[in-house]
Amino acid sequence: MKISARNILKGKVKEVKHGMVDTEVDIELPGGGEIVSVITKHSAETMKLAKGKEVYAVIKASNVMIMVD
Amino acid sequence: MKISARNILKGKVKEVKHGMVDTEVDIELPGGGEIVSVITKHSAETMKLAKGKEVYAVIKASNVMIMVD
Amino acid sequence: MKISARNILKGKVKEVKHGMVDTEVDIELPGGGEIVSVITKHSAETMKLAKGKEVYAVIKASNVMIMVD
Amino acid sequence: MKISARNILKGKVKEVKHGMVDTEVDIELPGGGEIVSVITKHSAETMKLAKGKEVYAVIKASNVMIMVD
Amino acid sequence: MKISARNILKGKVKEVKHGMVDTEVDIELPGGGEIVSVITKHSAETMKLAKGKEVYAVIKASNVMIMVD
Amino acid sequence: MKISARNILKGKVKEVKHGMVDTEVDIELPGGGEIVSVITKHSAETMKLAKGKEVYAVIKASNVMIMVD
Repeated sequence: MKISARNILKGKVKEVKHGMVDTEVDIELPGGGEIVSVITKHSAETMKLAKGKEVYAVIKASNVMIMVD
Repeated sequence: MKISARNILKGKVKEVKHGMVDTEVDIELPGGGEIVSVITKHSAETMKLAKGKEVYAVIKASNVMIMVD
Repeated sequence: MKISARNILKGKVKEVKHGMVDTEVDIELPGGGEIVSVITKHSAETMKLAKGKEVYAVIKASNVMIMVD
Repeated sequence: MKISARNILKGKVKEVKHGMVDTEVDIELPGGGEIVSVITKHSAETMKLAKGKEVYAVIKASNVMIMVD
Repeated sequence: MKISARNILKGKVKEVKHGMVDTEVDIELPGGGEIVSVITKHSAETMKLAKGKEVYAVIKASNVMIMVD
Repeated sequence: MKISARNILKGKVKEVKHGMVDTEVDIELPGGGEIVSVITKHSAETMKLAKGKEVYAVIKASNVMIMVD
């Protein structure tokens, strides 16, 4: 399976916080950084996301902004 | 200046590819990974993005999906 | 600090409605209009968003659609 | 016709810049501010967007970030 | 009223699940497929979305990714 | 491979229009409808998208708006 999104970052779930509709998922990256995702609670539960699970953060290039000092 | 976007990843511009309206910017992350961004050509030129420049990739949490094997 | 997002609208927080994961923030614009934002509750709390606070609504150009009568 | 997007800002087209796939549309707001949109060239041509045309900028609340000084 | 979003899919509301800020809306498509949307609770209530209501799912082309086997 | 995006619609490529940075891909759905996607040219070429190829349109629920008459 290949997806057009250009950014696929491998990491491990650090924390899962469920809301009623959405769920926040904090992901630890190997280099020490972190990625935060908000997906639907349905997906978080279906994918059995829990602390320690290996996941990929997937981000479309057009959703990445750039900031400079 | 603080922004609500939860994902701010520091890196260095690796490559800039201009289109007529958009520009693709490939960013090298310290850990060896890469982030690809598509912003408007106007912004890329205004921010003088070029190979080697230090930048931050900024991504709203609601734009991060999760994939599992 | 400069960000590639082309739309940065200055305004004042009118109302903050927290959910469990997300927070809705209604922003009054100087011209009398209003902008509604949904960000993570974590960010809304970290940025101490409350009625009357001066903020900027930041919107990437590729997230703006156009409608005509 | 009613749409769920919470942000619908009335304005006038100031400039249209076509690319091969995308088109950048700069919109003047009554209060003097400006909104920049990137839509597909197909839509820009179908909607006959040109300088002076009255339009609405439509933005989903979840695509609005917040920045503070 | 014409909108620049290229994807407008007609369907019927199958289920509405309210959160505190967001609402998930499941939409049945005529061909038997389904589309899931997350909008603000405010919009879902204002539009009186309920099972059986005829609606359109509206999606900007730049928010559609592509996957292949 | 499982992805959190709730909307995965199977179809066939009808047309591919390359720009310099982006590519527009029109996808025919089995029920007769159509989905239009804009992805990076790099992804469109890497995935060898061409007329007749079987693909999936992938859309995050938070990117689906709702419209009513």
